[in-house]
Amino acid sequence: MGDKKRTEISELGQFGLIDRLTANFHSVNQHTVFGVGDDAAVIDTGGEDFLLLSTDLLLEGIHFDLVYFPLKHLGFKAVVVAIGDILAMNGRPEQLTLSLGVSAKLGVEQLEELYEGVRAACREYGVDLVGGDTSASVNGLVLSFSVVGRVPKKQIAYRSGAQLHDLICLTGDLGAAYMGLHLLEREKRAFEGHPDPHPKFEGYEYLLRRQLKPSARLDIIDSLREAEIVPTSMIDLTDGLASDLLQLCRSSKCGARIYLDRLPIARETYAMAEELHADPVVAALNGGDDHELLFTVPLALQDRVAGIGGIDIIGHITSEQSGAVLVTPDGSDITLTAPGFKQ
Amino acid sequence: MGDKKRTEISELGQFGLIDRLTANFHSVNQHTVFGVGDDAAVIDTGGEDFLLLSTDLLLEGIHFDLVYFPLKHLGFKAVVVAIGDILAMNGRPEQLTLSLGVSAKLGVEQLEELYEGVRAACREYGVDLVGGDTSASVNGLVLSFSVVGRVPKKQIAYRSGAQLHDLICLTGDLGAAYMGLHLLEREKRAFEGHPDPHPKFEGYEYLLRRQLKPSARLDIIDSLREAEIVPTSMIDLTDGLASDLLQLCRSSKCGARIYLDRLPIARETYAMAEELHADPVVAALNGGDDHELLFTVPLALQDRVAGIGGIDIIGHITSEQSGAVLVTPDGSDITLTAPGFKQ
Repeated sequence: MGDKKRTEISELGQFGLIDRLTANFHSVNQHTVFGVGDDAAVIDTGGEDFLLLSTDLLLEGIHFDLVYFPLKHLGFKAVVVAIGDILAMNGRPEQLTLSLGVSAKLGVEQLEELYEGVRAACREYGVDLVGGDTSASVNGLVLSFSVVGRVPKKQIAYRSGAQLHDLICLTGDLGAAYMGLHLLEREKRAFEGHPDPHPKFEGYEYLLRRQLKPSARLDIIDSLREAEIVPTSMIDLTDGLASDLLQLCRSSKCGARIYLDRLPIARETYAMAEELHADPVVAALNGGDDHELLFTVPLALQDRVAGIGGIDIIGHITSEQSGAVLVTPDGSDITLTAPGFKQ
Repeated sequence: MGDKKRTEISELGQFGLIDRLTANFHSVNQHTVFGVGDDAAVIDTGGEDFLLLSTDLLLEGIHFDLVYFPLKHLGFKAVVVAIGDILAMNGRPEQLTLSLGVSAKLGVEQLEELYEGVRAACREYGVDLVGGDTSASVNGLVLSFSVVGRVPKKQIAYRSGAQLHDLICLTGDLGAAYMGLHLLEREKRAFEGHPDPHPKFEGYEYLLRRQLKPSARLDIIDSLREAEIVPTSMIDLTDGLASDLLQLCRSSKCGARIYLDRLPIARETYAMAEELHADPVVAALNGGDDHELLFTVPLALQDRVAGIGGIDIIGHITSEQSGAVLVTPDGSDITLTAPGFKQ
């Protein structure tokens, strides 16, 4: 590489990197409706529905640790992660492919456990496994998913549609999966090299479930349809509320005010944070891995959204100049910032 | 993993592994026409075309070596590999996603080179990059592609449609990419640790091009359409003629006779094989990485196929009991066998 200039990826951040890499790409197919920059690509196949396409890559050592992640759970969770991108467009997932890079430490029985989890998730969410392949990997387990979904054209939700004064809505609660990860990491350290480990997880089953067996919020997509609510914008929570809200604001060219005392945080998350001397609000804002849906609706739909249940209204959309702000109970504003490239 | 039974993946082979892992999956969506077991999945979107979906995973250390594979060429070749699955269904590729796992040794400029190659291939083959993401990788560069294509329903070519007496047709030539790989590996060994290597590639540019910058045979798909030929079956050559022909025979429940003296092998491939004391026929049969198309047509279309140019008729389809056989010039039969899991 000699004396060529070298820019570190961390200098650009993940948004900046993708912007830079894809700047010179231009779509030429008439069927391509929307490409890079949302949760899924949008393809027009001519009928009343749009087709949605998304992809996810999960790498051992970055996205999961096989020391404490059972393969069956990994298979299930990977499907949940993969179909989240389709849900985030207000669509229903239908087909899925899985390609595997398999390290030598795994035998056929282990892969069967992984596929058992994939199958359980496919069944739960009505998705068909339609392809994929396997190859050896010299460097740990690699899972690559692509998902095809479908959404009525009139009901598609982009990241870019949020309007001034829209309500910001959130499903589920925040930070529990992140705390579950910390718990697993702590027990891993405590029992490293121990021949017969018995980690202590009592009382924290909820945190473990959120980390090891999260749910895809297909139920919310169905509920929104029943209630005849089309979100003006939507994104799925993968990188943490702060980062994902900033992405939504960036796409919609708007700002946001969210209220700290409206953030849904589970009792177990508070308890674990206390035990770890960590800030539960940081876990809620930046923890990631929540796999919940963040969306906006017009102010007029407040009662209809409240009627669904399990959805919190955590704030509202403001002008772009105002930025994205967290309002604390004492009334002070904290500007939200995006973390960098996920290491 | 204790005393649980452990079956090595190599015991099953790649076909056996995928059969075993996907045995309990059953499609539930009405739009899923064909799932696991062909080059691409087939989805019915209601119009006159089928939608095709395929996925490919390329791993550093298994599928490519960055010591001699320029990143720009890698980006180009990866797209060629990815869209090959769509061509193999007699379809045209339209959209592509790329997910990257990026090791710390690569900076932004290197990723730009990679994307430059992706962009060149997208432009050449009329494909839109519509999504993907990037994350860090602790274990080398990972490229994951998914491709969506389209084929008129009446023109789709499965692996399973070959009929008794059909002609076996092949585009391009065999074994050159494999010999190119050997050449690169030889020069890598010769210059390992050398501060200013000048490897000798004169006379072997064709082999290098076949390895480092292969072409996708979209031209053949177009030519077949113009000539109003719909192959009865088709597959793209990735694992080597022997393995891919066996897959086609297995799907079509048929046998095959191919003739050694009809196998297209380039002059440079012969020359390199001689230099390496290797058998060019082994390279042609098992080398892999050819990215050509292997297909069958009814006997009656022989002249029409010959009229296209650049296609060799290398044999014909026989009954399943006959197996897949290579006939040598002296008239003896060699039974073709599939290699195991690609390590």
